[in-house]
Amino acid sequence: MKEDILYHFALGTGTHDFPALFGDVKFVCVGGSPSRMKAFIAYIAEELGLGSPGGDYPNICAGTDRYAMYKVGPVLSVSHGMGIPSISIMLHELIKLLYHAKCSNITIIRIGTSGGIGLEPGSVVITRQSVDATFKPQFEQVILGKTVIRSTNLDEQLAKELMQCSKEIGQFNTVIGNTMCTLDFYEGQGRLDGAICLYNEEEKLQYLKEAYDSGVRNIEMESSVFAAMCNLSGVKAAVVCVTLLNRLEGDQISSSHDVLVEYQQRPQKLVGYFIKKSLGKV
Amino acid sequence: MKEDILYHFALGTGTHDFPALFGDVKFVCVGGSPSRMKAFIAYIAEELGLGSPGGDYPNICAGTDRYAMYKVGPVLSVSHGMGIPSISIMLHELIKLLYHAKCSNITIIRIGTSGGIGLEPGSVVITRQSVDATFKPQFEQVILGKTVIRSTNLDEQLAKELMQCSKEIGQFNTVIGNTMCTLDFYEGQGRLDGAICLYNEEEKLQYLKEAYDSGVRNIEMESSVFAAMCNLSGVKAAVVCVTLLNRLEGDQISSSHDVLVEYQQRPQKLVGYFIKKSLGKV
Repeated sequence: MKEDILYHFALGTGTHDFPALFGDVKFVCVGGSPSRMKAFIAYIAEELGLGSPGGDYPNICAGTDRYAMYKVGPVLSVSHGMGIPSISIMLHELIKLLYHAKCSNITIIRIGTSGGIGLEPGSVVITRQSVDATFKPQFEQVILGKTVIRSTNLDEQLAKELMQCSKEIGQFNTVIGNTMCTLDFYEGQGRLDGAICLYNEEEKLQYLKEAYDSGVRNIEMESSVFAAMCNLSGVKAAVVCVTLLNRLEGDQISSSHDVLVEYQQRPQKLVGYFIKKSLGKV
Repeated sequence: MKEDILYHFALGTGTHDFPALFGDVKFVCVGGSPSRMKAFIAYIAEELGLGSPGGDYPNICAGTDRYAMYKVGPVLSVSHGMGIPSISIMLHELIKLLYHAKCSNITIIRIGTSGGIGLEPGSVVITRQSVDATFKPQFEQVILGKTVIRSTNLDEQLAKELMQCSKEIGQFNTVIGNTMCTLDFYEGQGRLDGAICLYNEEEKLQYLKEAYDSGVRNIEMESSVFAAMCNLSGVKAAVVCVTLLNRLEGDQISSSHDVLVEYQQRPQKLVGYFIKKSLGKV
């Protein structure tokens, strides 16, 4: 290919010098919300002593509103929107970006939000395995109309290191558990408060309890394809999500704005500490 | 339910007066990109003679960066991100919003971008049927771990009226055809330029030609769940997407920025004309 256009990043090998822009990247953190990923880059810059005086970090993908991307030192922070298709587009273009930039020894961590099962809200879950809606550790990828099954294994050692970091911080409850990845937030996760709902509370609770019994501790919408693509690309990966509510007790996210903001900082704190420690700065 | 929190809109029945804010809505236009949906509200305001002097339209969902929402007169414009899960969250909360606001006789139109098959780039496709990756007019919804098949029928009369509008405008090629809705932009649509690709050009072209022969004229990532949910909710719906490239000739979107911007205005022009005509202003 003469030129590779990463359309959804508004970047291209013909217009941007990828090795110069991204060659020193070692850690990539991804999350759904663009403003959260901007907040993360400011946080990690401060933690690594690389803070810019004005505290402003330009969006590298300013030419599009599909994703936002920020960088400081060896850390890249990228938003991915909501759901498997949205993160999969981003990961295809991110993996190509890292390849064109000749990066090596990359660690990718998703820092996100989720619904917890049987955990106090605000608990952080480090994913052991990402499982589908039938609790199997697999991702179904449709290729040219045919379904292919892919493994959703994540790096076990990395999960343990992150757990150790959480113990050292000692500020919030953290567990290692399975994460269920669904294609839908309402019917797909057994919520009763969607626009369409064809089951009752009893059936919902039975499903969530089965999930719990199989080892699921939280539910989100991106981890399976994230694990599958990182696996196939040989990149070390982890998923660290905070739980915004306990789904055994309700469906609506009704905590106050301030409480939710503090919860969302927890994966950032944990992963920020991990990066500092990896760089020998703790 | 005492209060309904539409979490991803940052709106709630306990904090916002839905009938006062949205009771007069008759047309809802949705599209992936927040900036495109902002441009659409400015365009339709001008067209309907409801333009604000400064030309500024506040984002109703300013409390979150998950979606953006704008309103002028009877028209609501909402972004939905990329992919089935992302638009499905938005539609659940949109349908609840319209219900709480006591709206009636709503028409919802998705105005989007797509890859064309066998069409000159810039052509507009009005969807007859949304089909899956095996060309069937159905959407598989996973509910509590079990797959349920839903119909993806769209309003035939509305599609014809939109086609008539395009003839009256006479500015760009428009066809009625089937739209294939996929869960992935790269492997799911037979692209050869993703980070992962396990098939060759011949297999890709064979798949796209089979799609063409079955009546598919464009490929995007939201129409099936959009059709299914509008169907189940009894809301009249249409999908109008411009094609950014002809997939029989390539995978990369390499037209210039200005050309792509003009293409993306075509569904807006078509739907803007339809709304004006529906309101007796043509």
